[in-house]
Amino acid sequence: MPRVSEDHLAARRREILDGSRRCFAEHGYDGATVRRLEEATGLSRGAIFHHFRDKEALFLALAHEDAERMADVAAEQGLVQVMRDMLDHPEDFDWLGTRLEIARKLRSDPEFRSEFLARSIDLEAATLARLERQRSAGRLRDDLPTEVIVAYLDLILDGLITRLASGHRGSDLHAVLDLVEESVRRSRTE
Amino acid sequence: MPRVSEDHLAARRREILDGSRRCFAEHGYDGATVRRLEEATGLSRGAIFHHFRDKEALFLALAHEDAERMADVAAEQGLVQVMRDMLDHPEDFDWLGTRLEIARKLRSDPEFRSEFLARSIDLEAATLARLERQRSAGRLRDDLPTEVIVAYLDLILDGLITRLASGHRGSDLHAVLDLVEESVRRSRTE
Repeated sequence: MPRVSEDHLAARRREILDGSRRCFAEHGYDGATVRRLEEATGLSRGAIFHHFRDKEALFLALAHEDAERMADVAAEQGLVQVMRDMLDHPEDFDWLGTRLEIARKLRSDPEFRSEFLARSIDLEAATLARLERQRSAGRLRDDLPTEVIVAYLDLILDGLITRLASGHRGSDLHAVLDLVEESVRRSRTE
Repeated sequence: MPRVSEDHLAARRREILDGSRRCFAEHGYDGATVRRLEEATGLSRGAIFHHFRDKEALFLALAHEDAERMADVAAEQGLVQVMRDMLDHPEDFDWLGTRLEIARKLRSDPEFRSEFLARSIDLEAATLARLERQRSAGRLRDDLPTEVIVAYLDLILDGLITRLASGHRGSDLHAVLDLVEESVRRSRTE
């Protein structure tokens, strides 16, 4: 048997993730059956589950990838910019609708819940770090704990994901994000 | 055969709605099978679908009831109070998680989408009317169109529903709602 190189393994993993993302976006969490995952990735179930323990692990790996990408943007430009990117390219975020379908699972399965929340630690940390820098630079309002501002932005992110996942494409949401940005800025307090 | 009185019909309709609401809350939209709806309501499928065309109609009737109840609170006390009620009594809103599960259906089924959006017209109208009164009384910031403020509040409502449906019970959300309320008030602008 030929020895499988690390590059090959990484490429295979990439194929599985990309195919699965499309599959979840199209069919939803429950609808992404093993057969459909095979079709979408062009790989056998044996190959897929060699890399990922089960569908849950695959879903969490995708959620983790998203969180890392968002964290990069959030660290440089803030969480509101992450949201503006979503508004401008909703088609890149179709997959996020799957997050809504797992709400029941999040509520009823504590282990899944804690693994899901763990994936967003990087994003939370990046957002918090940027807000602290903004605060030091005097650009963030200073009459509220940073945690409240993070919770506020997170809530709006959840709302936006829900909107986009429901097919809302309103341009009015840009004006809403302006309001969000302004509501945490220092300027309005003084 | 005894003649079925209007009171009896209304009581039967009530039983169906209450049982179905519990059934959707527990099993989700797809999980609320006809058999489970029969168990939850204690009625036969014949009786249930005599009152409601199909499961979709039943779901929309529940969504409409919610929207009416929210509209009453929103008209008197504003949409933020609707959200505070949700935070204080999340158990009364368990059913709302079902709204997330229908996101895919909203996106892909235009007829369902328009019926679902129609149910919230009362809530939208009540919110808008109260904001206009607040504006006239000089309590609402006047540098933004009311529509943007409504869209902002709606986005936060969607975020809150997502949070609660995912099992989040954080008390920090009260502080977030304070921030939301303040960000649309006039006081901070002057």
